[in-house]
Amino acid sequence: MINASTDNSPFAINKPTLVVDKNRAIHNIRKMQEKVKRNNIEFRPHFKTHQSADIGTWFSENGVTAITVSSVDMASYFAENGWNDITIAFSVNILQIDEINRLAGNINLHLLVESVETVEFLSGNLINPVNTWIKIDAGYHRTGISCDRFDDILTVVNSIEKSDRLSFQGILTHSGHSYYQSSKESVERIYFKTIEKLNMVKDYLETHGVTKVKISVGDTPSCSVVEDFGNVDEIRPGNFLFYDIMQTVIGSCTEDEIAVAVACPVVAKHKERSEIVLYGGAVHLSKEYIKESDGLIHYGRIAFWNGKGWGTTIKNSYIKSVSQEHGILKTDSATFDSISVGSLVFILPVHSCLTVDLLRNFVTTDGLTLNAATY
Amino acid sequence: MINASTDNSPFAINKPTLVVDKNRAIHNIRKMQEKVKRNNIEFRPHFKTHQSADIGTWFSENGVTAITVSSVDMASYFAENGWNDITIAFSVNILQIDEINRLAGNINLHLLVESVETVEFLSGNLINPVNTWIKIDAGYHRTGISCDRFDDILTVVNSIEKSDRLSFQGILTHSGHSYYQSSKESVERIYFKTIEKLNMVKDYLETHGVTKVKISVGDTPSCSVVEDFGNVDEIRPGNFLFYDIMQTVIGSCTEDEIAVAVACPVVAKHKERSEIVLYGGAVHLSKEYIKESDGLIHYGRIAFWNGKGWGTTIKNSYIKSVSQEHGILKTDSATFDSISVGSLVFILPVHSCLTVDLLRNFVTTDGLTLNAATY
Repeated sequence: MINASTDNSPFAINKPTLVVDKNRAIHNIRKMQEKVKRNNIEFRPHFKTHQSADIGTWFSENGVTAITVSSVDMASYFAENGWNDITIAFSVNILQIDEINRLAGNINLHLLVESVETVEFLSGNLINPVNTWIKIDAGYHRTGISCDRFDDILTVVNSIEKSDRLSFQGILTHSGHSYYQSSKESVERIYFKTIEKLNMVKDYLETHGVTKVKISVGDTPSCSVVEDFGNVDEIRPGNFLFYDIMQTVIGSCTEDEIAVAVACPVVAKHKERSEIVLYGGAVHLSKEYIKESDGLIHYGRIAFWNGKGWGTTIKNSYIKSVSQEHGILKTDSATFDSISVGSLVFILPVHSCLTVDLLRNFVTTDGLTLNAATY
Repeated sequence: MINASTDNSPFAINKPTLVVDKNRAIHNIRKMQEKVKRNNIEFRPHFKTHQSADIGTWFSENGVTAITVSSVDMASYFAENGWNDITIAFSVNILQIDEINRLAGNINLHLLVESVETVEFLSGNLINPVNTWIKIDAGYHRTGISCDRFDDILTVVNSIEKSDRLSFQGILTHSGHSYYQSSKESVERIYFKTIEKLNMVKDYLETHGVTKVKISVGDTPSCSVVEDFGNVDEIRPGNFLFYDIMQTVIGSCTEDEIAVAVACPVVAKHKERSEIVLYGGAVHLSKEYIKESDGLIHYGRIAFWNGKGWGTTIKNSYIKSVSQEHGILKTDSATFDSISVGSLVFILPVHSCLTVDLLRNFVTTDGLTLNAATY
């Protein structure tokens, strides 16, 4: 007979649980902040990665005072938890004007716009002044005004400057195509191309009488691999706090900088397929997958509890598929034999932001529970 | 200047919101239940699809008394909301034995096992009796004992029958490979192959002295397209309540049977790419995508409010990509011109179960808010 043992971790985990290695996370925060200081620029980390007031204090204790979020709800949550300089890095959703007005009455709020229509709506409906950035598309092609449409950008700046509620700050981009790279060199190429394009926009605006144009950039791959940020004013990385398997494939981090894993109970074993069934699926990890350079597609790598945290990832072992609650771990026979029903497997996620958003509540490797947003 | 108008729906939606068409959902419940009655079998719908006590009453008002869930937490939620005959259709996670004992003390609980180890653990640790089913793999190859391993199945049955805490009920499968089909004929082939295999197992068990072996099946594609269920005792479909784009591609439903959509605000327009940026991304829809027969990959179809609900899906329009909070709608020029910043687009999801799990809180097309689980 087997026992339902939790000896394989220092705390009683019995269902899919987000575990954070605080030492690694603090290491990642400090490493990024030291780089920011060397570059003499502003640090405005993206808090969508953790959405936790408790983890927010790890940043404030290390000198961070300004943050980025991706929704009005997230801004409200962090405002309630003492943060008073917040950029909502998502083009303004005008339907949330009431919430925006409430926030702007309480904190130093920064918004993104990308059209004259939205600027005019804000101008007519804002009660309190807000800082305003223009969202630029520097090659990712998700959203923002294309960086080569100088006149369109200038038109939006001019409409901002006409309003006494909007204070123009500068141009902002997210070069998310860096996430599709698999070498430091290609990430660096994207970064410097982005900076070059943004500085051309800045030059154009300054030639046309617009002063003090700041530049804000911020994807984790670029911020991780680039040492000299060049002519920018602030960076807004988020994922670097936890990193994940995707970032190791890109080359942004080493495996031992990954600071979050999902502890999953083993529920069944299938020797004929060398597969193990875990309680932990799409509603815990998300359906984000990665295709590695050898063509292998998977939903996460695995590790085991080593007494202090999770150890190095296990070779020949990966999450082959996920359905709503199930994860299927494909492994070799030696690892298969070492895993028993009722033990815990730690999954290092492909994309930590989505996994954290799904699970929200953290325990640290020391067994402490951390508060997170419930919106 | 534009206005932040919510005239395009009868209720004030200002961020990604799950909208349910109650009439369609009730239609789907009744249609399935009438088929169950014609077949003279049991109906045990899967509640993971909605996870809402309020929507649960739509089933109880239509005569449903027994349900299926996919986790212990979900079972506890519905037990607290008055359901007292619940199958947890997920192989027992022995680490949750305390919660299982609490549940089994209060309701008529059904569990799934697939190994002697788990049976022996339950036998030694259960306080109250539970109904026990053996999880069979009839071709999906996710989990369960393979249907051709007659001796292994018999060994588990014998171990169940040795325990005074476990009451053997029968064999249960989920033929999830039906979700990968694109015609009624291929879904039917899978269904009848599944039934044939399960009946071979049942015959084998009965030949070896095991009596009253029930058969439980239940994927939505099969339950939707098959009219005569053959020799089974109960069905457990879940997704049929709402259906989704995936089910229309499989042939399980018509588009006007899809009972859930996500209302998303329009935040930006990009005429040069004929793309519209929606507030609504992977944290609302999930990253589930579909490849249609013409090769098109997308994350959802769209429709507009028609005064009573969402209308028919718009041609040449689909969600091209999703990131954490953004959805990119690709459309043609006529539709592009008809959509304005600040209006709402209704996204019909690829996979409603994952979308509902992410958003949880429903409003009906009549503007009523429905309670859902918060675990």
